[in-house]
Amino acid sequence: MNNFMDHDFLLDSELARVLYHNYASAMPIIDYHCHMSPEDIARDKKFENITQVWLAADHYKWRAMRSCGVSERLITGDADDYEKFEAFVECMPCLIGNPIYHWSHLELKRYFGYEGVICPDNCEEIWNVTKKVLSEGLSTRKIIERSNVKLLCTTDDPADSLEYHIALREDKSFSPVVLPAFRPDKSLNIDAAGFADYIQHLGEVAGVKIDTFEKLCEVLASRIEYFACLGCRTSDHSFDNEVVFDGTLFEEQVKKVAGAAFKRAISGNEVPADAVSAYKNALIRFLGKEYVKHGFVMQIHFGAMRNTNSVMFKKLGPDRGYDTISGKNSTAALGAMLDALNSDSALPRTVLYSLNPADNEQIADLAGCFQYASEESEGLMGLPNVVQGAAWWFNDHLSGMKDHFRSYANSAAFGKFLGMLTDSRSALSYTRHEYFRRALCSFIAGFVERGEYPLDIEALAQMVCDICYNNTKDFFGFKLI
Amino acid sequence: MNNFMDHDFLLDSELARVLYHNYASAMPIIDYHCHMSPEDIARDKKFENITQVWLAADHYKWRAMRSCGVSERLITGDADDYEKFEAFVECMPCLIGNPIYHWSHLELKRYFGYEGVICPDNCEEIWNVTKKVLSEGLSTRKIIERSNVKLLCTTDDPADSLEYHIALREDKSFSPVVLPAFRPDKSLNIDAAGFADYIQHLGEVAGVKIDTFEKLCEVLASRIEYFACLGCRTSDHSFDNEVVFDGTLFEEQVKKVAGAAFKRAISGNEVPADAVSAYKNALIRFLGKEYVKHGFVMQIHFGAMRNTNSVMFKKLGPDRGYDTISGKNSTAALGAMLDALNSDSALPRTVLYSLNPADNEQIADLAGCFQYASEESEGLMGLPNVVQGAAWWFNDHLSGMKDHFRSYANSAAFGKFLGMLTDSRSALSYTRHEYFRRALCSFIAGFVERGEYPLDIEALAQMVCDICYNNTKDFFGFKLI
Amino acid sequence: MNNFMDHDFLLDSELARVLYHNYASAMPIIDYHCHMSPEDIARDKKFENITQVWLAADHYKWRAMRSCGVSERLITGDADDYEKFEAFVECMPCLIGNPIYHWSHLELKRYFGYEGVICPDNCEEIWNVTKKVLSEGLSTRKIIERSNVKLLCTTDDPADSLEYHIALREDKSFSPVVLPAFRPDKSLNIDAAGFADYIQHLGEVAGVKIDTFEKLCEVLASRIEYFACLGCRTSDHSFDNEVVFDGTLFEEQVKKVAGAAFKRAISGNEVPADAVSAYKNALIRFLGKEYVKHGFVMQIHFGAMRNTNSVMFKKLGPDRGYDTISGKNSTAALGAMLDALNSDSALPRTVLYSLNPADNEQIADLAGCFQYASEESEGLMGLPNVVQGAAWWFNDHLSGMKDHFRSYANSAAFGKFLGMLTDSRSALSYTRHEYFRRALCSFIAGFVERGEYPLDIEALAQMVCDICYNNTKDFFGFKLI
Repeated sequence: MNNFMDHDFLLDSELARVLYHNYASAMPIIDYHCHMSPEDIARDKKFENITQVWLAADHYKWRAMRSCGVSERLITGDADDYEKFEAFVECMPCLIGNPIYHWSHLELKRYFGYEGVICPDNCEEIWNVTKKVLSEGLSTRKIIERSNVKLLCTTDDPADSLEYHIALREDKSFSPVVLPAFRPDKSLNIDAAGFADYIQHLGEVAGVKIDTFEKLCEVLASRIEYFACLGCRTSDHSFDNEVVFDGTLFEEQVKKVAGAAFKRAISGNEVPADAVSAYKNALIRFLGKEYVKHGFVMQIHFGAMRNTNSVMFKKLGPDRGYDTISGKNSTAALGAMLDALNSDSALPRTVLYSLNPADNEQIADLAGCFQYASEESEGLMGLPNVVQGAAWWFNDHLSGMKDHFRSYANSAAFGKFLGMLTDSRSALSYTRHEYFRRALCSFIAGFVERGEYPLDIEALAQMVCDICYNNTKDFFGFKLI
Repeated sequence: MNNFMDHDFLLDSELARVLYHNYASAMPIIDYHCHMSPEDIARDKKFENITQVWLAADHYKWRAMRSCGVSERLITGDADDYEKFEAFVECMPCLIGNPIYHWSHLELKRYFGYEGVICPDNCEEIWNVTKKVLSEGLSTRKIIERSNVKLLCTTDDPADSLEYHIALREDKSFSPVVLPAFRPDKSLNIDAAGFADYIQHLGEVAGVKIDTFEKLCEVLASRIEYFACLGCRTSDHSFDNEVVFDGTLFEEQVKKVAGAAFKRAISGNEVPADAVSAYKNALIRFLGKEYVKHGFVMQIHFGAMRNTNSVMFKKLGPDRGYDTISGKNSTAALGAMLDALNSDSALPRTVLYSLNPADNEQIADLAGCFQYASEESEGLMGLPNVVQGAAWWFNDHLSGMKDHFRSYANSAAFGKFLGMLTDSRSALSYTRHEYFRRALCSFIAGFVERGEYPLDIEALAQMVCDICYNNTKDFFGFKLI
Repeated sequence: MNNFMDHDFLLDSELARVLYHNYASAMPIIDYHCHMSPEDIARDKKFENITQVWLAADHYKWRAMRSCGVSERLITGDADDYEKFEAFVECMPCLIGNPIYHWSHLELKRYFGYEGVICPDNCEEIWNVTKKVLSEGLSTRKIIERSNVKLLCTTDDPADSLEYHIALREDKSFSPVVLPAFRPDKSLNIDAAGFADYIQHLGEVAGVKIDTFEKLCEVLASRIEYFACLGCRTSDHSFDNEVVFDGTLFEEQVKKVAGAAFKRAISGNEVPADAVSAYKNALIRFLGKEYVKHGFVMQIHFGAMRNTNSVMFKKLGPDRGYDTISGKNSTAALGAMLDALNSDSALPRTVLYSLNPADNEQIADLAGCFQYASEESEGLMGLPNVVQGAAWWFNDHLSGMKDHFRSYANSAAFGKFLGMLTDSRSALSYTRHEYFRRALCSFIAGFVERGEYPLDIEALAQMVCDICYNNTKDFFGFKLI
């Protein structure tokens, strides 16, 4: 029997331990997709207590608490911070096998030096220990630095001034590189509430009156340029509920329909479903070309069903733990979109993330249909341009990661995998990279243990380091020493 | 190598053995969903031979035999009981890995004291041993009592007189509690053959001429009241082929459409698809409110494709082993229904069962979007009101249960899981609870063995007992000592 | 730690080793579905170097290379054979866990006697060793014979003259039986480009002007007769993108619509979607009856999405590695087709293959709805008439096979499983049978190791031999000694 979450946590063979402790653990982190606030990093946000860190904004933990039947008052309600923490700790023993269980323990160990079990008996002790560490200055920047993060990409709206990114660029006291990522969902979602207002706001930021589709494109192009100047290397798209793209719509007159749709929408009129599709098609094609031009990687997150609970949406707004996996499979639509972009020389380097684990194989194999050698690759091989991204959101737990590893390895070159991203709002989440790397080393070592791969430590170590760091660096083209 | 199905069957670690033998095995059973006949229990049905117990009505075994190429004459045909048993025994060695293989052996061990292997060589011996035990009085009630069942819920039509439930209530010689469960599928299935006749029959039972949708609602409300008086705590719904609910239909005028549709249907006219949806929407909303009022748990079984083989349906009728998993994913529709009910304060405590194992994660995560603290919960946590139910039907085998455990634990609080139900027509199926509990103890122990959960026997034992018994007792609100 | 791919590769217990080495390994191969060229076998095709064998036509390997970012010039382009081989070898270390990794090593071991690791350091050595063996006469026939193949079925168009099959029949110097399989996809795909030309060609081969649907049926019937005379026992169908069958279309007037659709199509006119369905329905019903008459097994491969990358399709044509798994689930449509055929006495013995591993359970359970005893079966049991086929294409790797074994065993009689087929264009692929058999023996032994099946070597050995050989022989009705 293994000790609970000790030095060798998740490392199920001697080789796994060697690969992790000697190679993986020392690799720096490139966090190419997260939702941290650049302002929090720029201002080096501090926290009064563990509730502010853990429970103020983490809908993963909120869902876990709801699944334990905790009253909403103790989750997002007006209970005080200690009460909320107490309620969370009360839940922990029930969360056997849940990633929250491991993440929370790892965070206490790595950043607070607390080695005990999170359970009601230890509630007060944990509260006090963490309070002390926080008061001694464990700030946002300290956490990032201590996590050995070399570079991170936040997620930013095209209308964002990027002022905090500029500030961070000029701040020599903080060495990790913080880059923006371009997320133009609000420009694409012509059918969403608030579209017209958003477009007006975007126009104001750009100093242009956006009254035609062409002007919108011009403004977005200039914002991409602006993001690129600040080092941006990637865009991010969320295609919710279903991907609406359909290859047959990529025709000459789509732009005309898109233009008319845009005019209707900014005048506050409803746009018919067909025109919504045409608009999105035209815009993504335009954006694809811009991404290609600037060498941006396009990340596509699809398959979420958002705001399923209307009652709670009205009370709490979006991103409060009421999103889930959409059952509508849109692989065919996604394939049509990739094909349309590719046919139009508008397919940038692309990462595909699926929210439904039952789609793992479909995504892996679809990516395999659009893989070309990178133009910059030297030698016989390089990196393919379209890849399946890491297990996402509802799947970024131990078994979800293992399933993803498995489907990736079965259908493609696992040695080219881009590895982990945090996709989190909290700096403490950098322990997820540790979690991932431990699982990764066990996965790789498993093949050798079972006689399915040769015991060649050099090759194995190279693969581990590539997946932990090098592949991402090369794929996104980050300039790092 | 382990011995074949010995004392430690399925218990793959020392801790699993401790948890099972010291805790799980002694817990009584609450079988909150089964298809046993209340009449058989009231009359204490006896059996002449093992064929009558095993092969007279079990479509699981029939399918297994068909998959071995056995002639229908030996399955549902006119072959004599011994011939049928012989054919089944002949199949057994081919059924490696099939749950029938383990269930059958467990049933012989636990109720007949037979420890041998079921194979052609032992066919006659098994026939004789079981015949003797049956002739010595192993009746339906004996099996239930010997299984340590404290309470079971049958599945009953609203039109049912519940006479056998009344008889069982008054019979002091049988201590397990037998309650009805309210299954109004026939009232919902306005598009099914025989709907008009059924409504007439329901009206006769209720002493009311049901000629409007409002009258139907009144009658169903009074039947719910009647069921509740006899201790009923749960309803059950089967949404076949696809869930037809759509949030957009939950509007004021739906009732008008529903009313018109109902009138058409009871006059024997066909109802257009849209009106079928409107009718079902209006009725489920009405029923949801009644369930909330009476504190009923609503069980939703969805995703079955029924009567796929027309030829055999005409010959043998429904429930003869020709149902299967529907590939049409209806998670979005299910989510829309839950949201509509929730928005209307008509969402009772709910258990969601899916027939497609590829939907496990979707169901688990959808349930997580509608979880509130139970009003009656004391202390910091209680039980959530919407949960994923146990692996169902084509998935209630070892690997299906493990997959379900895994997805449940990944997305919610496994310690709050409601555990096993039998969903069977045969009392012998209570061994499935043993099967489940062994798998459960190995699953839970596995986390500790791998260092993923602390070795805290008290907490682990509590979790095991909660999942085996306490959670169900609390969730359904059964009054048991 | 196991040695890399040694004698006991994939055999994870002592019992697995016994079952494989003492029983499975010696069984001959019946390869009931492959894409080898009968001409290559008849002419005993020889190869100059390993690139010609491995990389000239294998889209599995091409995809693997693309997933490593190799330039197309080194894959299907004008690079020379050694350069291409070098590029492939360069990729190999990245392909950890990919079936290509194991297949390639097995092929070098079994046919070339090369026991080293495929990696850049050994590139030249492998090139030279394989060149030598090829120059010493390792021809197509030698490979087949050395693989212990008793019988193989190629895949042939109804218009094919089968001249090479006739030649092989008469050639006494080659003992394996080579039979044609009837693949009428081009006759069914009325909506595909080139349909009219194909029908004209088919008519010329048959010496009949095919100007009506009835004439087409007559010609296909005579071709089936012709194939049957040459020993054909099976047809094969690929239903791409989605199965279009719908039970409601199987009506009297479908033939009328089909007839009109056919006339439109052979005149080069487009056929509306409804008429395409009606046509396919009418034709598959006709073919089903013919298959029943001749005792053909109908193999159905469904769920592929073809030619997803238009750019590469225009450059390279079909079957170049741009097909993938369709996400559109068509189990309901498939069920409707089986039901329609069955209702019409037109359901032959059938094997169902699905490309989406998430459909494994759906397919297994759907097959279970159409299982009848074979008329020819003697004794109490025989073989069922509709079965799930082996893990296909994107799933024929170790974990894909294990998942398939698991879902098969859970839902049906694993002892009746038809086992492995090659589905390959290369004779070297016969090592996939070895791969399968090793996985099979470990899977079966696992149940015994865990105490879930009795240690009865005789029964286990019988099961292994049945799955490796006997079941296929009986199911297809191959006459072999």
